[in-house]
Amino acid sequence: MAVEVRKDHFEQLKHLLEVKDEEGIKKLLSPLHASDIAKIFKELRTEDVVRIFKLLPPEVASEVILEVDEQLRKELIASISPARLVEVVDEMATDDATDVISELSFEDAKQVLEGIGREDAIEVQKLLRYPEDTAGGKMQTELVSVIEDATVEETIEELRKKSEEIENISSVFVVDSQGRLTGVVPLDRLILAKPYMRIKDIAEKDPIKVSTDVDQEEVARIFQKYDLLSLPVVDENNRLVGRITVDDVVDVIEEEIFEDFYRMASLNIGEHVLDPPMRSFRMRYPWLLLNLLTASIAAGVVKAFEGTIENMVVLAALMPIVAGLGGNAATQTITVVVRGLALGEIELRNAGKVLFKEAVVGLANGLLVGAVAALVSYIIGANMVIGLLLFLAMTANLLIAGLSGALIPLVLKWFNADPALSSSIFVTACTDVGGFFTFLGLAALFMRLGIL
Amino acid sequence: MAVEVRKDHFEQLKHLLEVKDEEGIKKLLSPLHASDIAKIFKELRTEDVVRIFKLLPPEVASEVILEVDEQLRKELIASISPARLVEVVDEMATDDATDVISELSFEDAKQVLEGIGREDAIEVQKLLRYPEDTAGGKMQTELVSVIEDATVEETIEELRKKSEEIENISSVFVVDSQGRLTGVVPLDRLILAKPYMRIKDIAEKDPIKVSTDVDQEEVARIFQKYDLLSLPVVDENNRLVGRITVDDVVDVIEEEIFEDFYRMASLNIGEHVLDPPMRSFRMRYPWLLLNLLTASIAAGVVKAFEGTIENMVVLAALMPIVAGLGGNAATQTITVVVRGLALGEIELRNAGKVLFKEAVVGLANGLLVGAVAALVSYIIGANMVIGLLLFLAMTANLLIAGLSGALIPLVLKWFNADPALSSSIFVTACTDVGGFFTFLGLAALFMRLGIL
Repeated sequence: MAVEVRKDHFEQLKHLLEVKDEEGIKKLLSPLHASDIAKIFKELRTEDVVRIFKLLPPEVASEVILEVDEQLRKELIASISPARLVEVVDEMATDDATDVISELSFEDAKQVLEGIGREDAIEVQKLLRYPEDTAGGKMQTELVSVIEDATVEETIEELRKKSEEIENISSVFVVDSQGRLTGVVPLDRLILAKPYMRIKDIAEKDPIKVSTDVDQEEVARIFQKYDLLSLPVVDENNRLVGRITVDDVVDVIEEEIFEDFYRMASLNIGEHVLDPPMRSFRMRYPWLLLNLLTASIAAGVVKAFEGTIENMVVLAALMPIVAGLGGNAATQTITVVVRGLALGEIELRNAGKVLFKEAVVGLANGLLVGAVAALVSYIIGANMVIGLLLFLAMTANLLIAGLSGALIPLVLKWFNADPALSSSIFVTACTDVGGFFTFLGLAALFMRLGIL
Repeated sequence: MAVEVRKDHFEQLKHLLEVKDEEGIKKLLSPLHASDIAKIFKELRTEDVVRIFKLLPPEVASEVILEVDEQLRKELIASISPARLVEVVDEMATDDATDVISELSFEDAKQVLEGIGREDAIEVQKLLRYPEDTAGGKMQTELVSVIEDATVEETIEELRKKSEEIENISSVFVVDSQGRLTGVVPLDRLILAKPYMRIKDIAEKDPIKVSTDVDQEEVARIFQKYDLLSLPVVDENNRLVGRITVDDVVDVIEEEIFEDFYRMASLNIGEHVLDPPMRSFRMRYPWLLLNLLTASIAAGVVKAFEGTIENMVVLAALMPIVAGLGGNAATQTITVVVRGLALGEIELRNAGKVLFKEAVVGLANGLLVGAVAALVSYIIGANMVIGLLLFLAMTANLLIAGLSGALIPLVLKWFNADPALSSSIFVTACTDVGGFFTFLGLAALFMRLGIL
């Protein structure tokens, strides 16, 4: 079992760096897993990271470089010699190698492709053509495949040849003489078969597969639906071109869910919590400027009721309650709807049902919370008509919150946009405008009627 | 390959239900995957679902019942005979059987446990003791294990015995004579070994494992870190008691991420988008009442400045801009910090760094957006001092947004609470109070100084 990283690892490492004991550093890091080394790197100064990285054996370095964040990866790549970079990339599976090479400058990429050997270079160049978020972009070309007529014995021989360079083999793929996928044999079935049997006789026929252009989100859904360990990828002629393994899919699922909620909060998915402040600033301010625009609309509504507020200034104090509750109720709705869309629980087909439901929930919450607000305001001695006003405006605005919280993601989906995109900004605009308009509008009406 | 569910499936099914053609229904559904049948169930009336469910073979029914939502599961269980329920549960792996039995009434659970056979019942009763969100609660007892001294041939024989009832076998576990876990053999390694070899000689020694009490989030992290397909679970004496497979972990990862963002938006993780309205209402209103309380604090701040607003009523129109931008900027910060905590990118150790960063980003955004707001207000003809007021208040409030957006999750984490819990309600309270206080407070100060 790999050793877990502990506090004293850091202290020992700092000491070893000070006394420049390279052998000691190698010895300290050798039992650690690549992701733990990446974790340690986050805590050290970049110059120390570069020094340590040079000491790692290529197979460890190739894993570590995939675990660190994008920025450190760039710095590490810039710090090592072209020969060393070739050595490191050469240790990677084709999908990872493609990811790293796609981030390199043209010159560096060319040099690495020349260095890693003709066969691998051809595979990587093929993979570079697929968009990153498709099955083609996620697949690796390392797999074990045999012709239909092969025997179990021959299949095991093929497995033996490939097993050293390929990780996580859970099944063998079966192809016809044209390279078209015709079956899959899980390893447990292969073990139990007799050596002389034909592989096509023990294979699962017509296996689950995807073509290279399928979106990664759909790939993840197929893995979950069928509880797969690996999934074959075929080209437009059903020829086997790669496979996707479940460990890559786990990362996709995580990424897709985070992406939804990042979009809801108007964030760029590339932002990380320990990014330099100026990077975060650049990614966030455009959204806040958009928000300034939407907030100005709400301000315009209030401005239209200046006369009403002048008559009774306590309205200015109460209006943020109505707007604020609407904002949080709408956030509840939007979160539930975005999750439902992500999990495929709702589609445009049953959008009406969701809209109706959220309207009912909004109305029910509005009636309850509005009544409590009215009651409290009465108890602390406010005008009874003010209480009525709070009750009516809150009921209306929580209804608006339910409707807009459901409608905004659904409409975005309808236009094939991301249903979560900036929804929190749009929704607070709706509930601010709705809250101010109903509350101040009703107040103005009541004043005209002479009851306030 | 399983047939995908299509629109005409629905129409055919509706027709078959009308004419009561049971054989036709069986034939239509037989090529479909359980998750597709569950999808179809969502679209039908409960009475039709109950009718169809009775026609499914037990092995399909057992999968479908795990795919439908909790409520429908309860209805289906209530609709079938005890004998049928036993039949259905009997088809499940122990982890799934445990989940279903734990939801039954005591009487029903007893009946099912008596029906499924002594051996399975003992396993399920053991599993029922572990909390649902721990390794013990997630594991299944179905696994292939052999004693260290077994040969490869004997191991394959054991695999043959178990392979029919166990799905997703990716490795064989090796135990000593006391049942203590000593090694793991992935199937590809087993295939390539000679029949006469001892299993302990080809096993990976000291394998990665967890004890039953490890939290499911930690289990998921171990799977991701080591790219595992299955993970052995041991008791306090290192005895092998079960295994967790990667397909269960995928669901855990999804659940944990959604849980974070649900908590941020003050939602109960059990809520689904197609729940009946009254269920959603009951889950949401307590949070909105809490929000009423926090919103009242913000209203109190505005109330304290009634005199200031009376002097210059345009302030009432501008103050929501300052508060609203603060709210959305804080949502950005909180989302980034909650994600960072979930991924383990930040811990309390580097909390200071995150706080400093978010303060800088908030300040920078405040200076920029405040300046734009001031400029716009000047262009549309507002008093220049009003512009200055907007600039100063927005800068201050976006700084408050950065600080509170980072502090609230970190403080919740510090107290061992969920860092996401209701953070959107608390954070809008901070930015509302902050926005109103700085904007109206500065306005009051400027008035006293005679410049406004």
